[in-house]
Amino acid sequence: MRARDLLVDFPTVSLDTPILEAARLLAARHLPGLIVLNLVGAPLTILPGTQVLRLAVPGYCQEDPALARVIDEAHADRIFSDLAGRTVRDALPAERRELPITDPGATVLEIAALMARTRSPLVAVVEGGRLLGAVTLQGLLERVTAA
Amino acid sequence: MRARDLLVDFPTVSLDTPILEAARLLAARHLPGLIVLNLVGAPLTILPGTQVLRLAVPGYCQEDPALARVIDEAHADRIFSDLAGRTVRDALPAERRELPITDPGATVLEIAALMARTRSPLVAVVEGGRLLGAVTLQGLLERVTAA
Repeated sequence: MRARDLLVDFPTVSLDTPILEAARLLAARHLPGLIVLNLVGAPLTILPGTQVLRLAVPGYCQEDPALARVIDEAHADRIFSDLAGRTVRDALPAERRELPITDPGATVLEIAALMARTRSPLVAVVEGGRLLGAVTLQGLLERVTAA
Repeated sequence: MRARDLLVDFPTVSLDTPILEAARLLAARHLPGLIVLNLVGAPLTILPGTQVLRLAVPGYCQEDPALARVIDEAHADRIFSDLAGRTVRDALPAERRELPITDPGATVLEIAALMARTRSPLVAVVEGGRLLGAVTLQGLLERVTAA
């Protein structure tokens, strides 16, 4: 069993996709993250689902939970209200991390190692710079625990 | 809107749950992770879905993807075959990280900040040492993007 046998179609976004649209896509499709394509349509990185929240949380609240607590509830509910014009580009983590990207020949063991190491439940499968699809933790576990 | 308004029931495991059972639970219920309870039933930590794979990947393959590649496909498919007797305890990361645990009064902003900071799509909600349920990234995004 190789990555090509575990492929699923997966929605993609671009760096310029509005962050609210990305959040709605994650919510509506029950996705663990999104594949971000570059200008020529090649996979650039993965935006983990939790990271769409980063823009919605003021910097001072990210580091200090006590500060988040003093914001009143009505205001706290509108975390996506001021994000017009903000995009996926703005939400990507600044630090360069290992990307959960592999090729269609990767074995189950390679995919599992990549997911465990990058902590990404989503791996993009690429061949010749072109996105073939994704392997999800869900799909991988369904196959390897079926025996 | 507070954590108590976003609560969902969430399956739990103990430190002694066999890792294969945890993997099957993740796969069958489409969960992003599992809440791990201690001996008296209080939430101890979250086991992220990707970390159930850690035990299934030999240490030398976790650090060096090239080594994972040389394992033949038939053997690579059986990543969970040698895990009899291994438990959730063995799969938990060694490093102590901030736990994605909050109380029922946490606001949407607090939950979002916690998920973004811990990179956990799952937050356990606890009151008086007792688990009330969980808030998922999914559930949070559905509510805050609905407007």
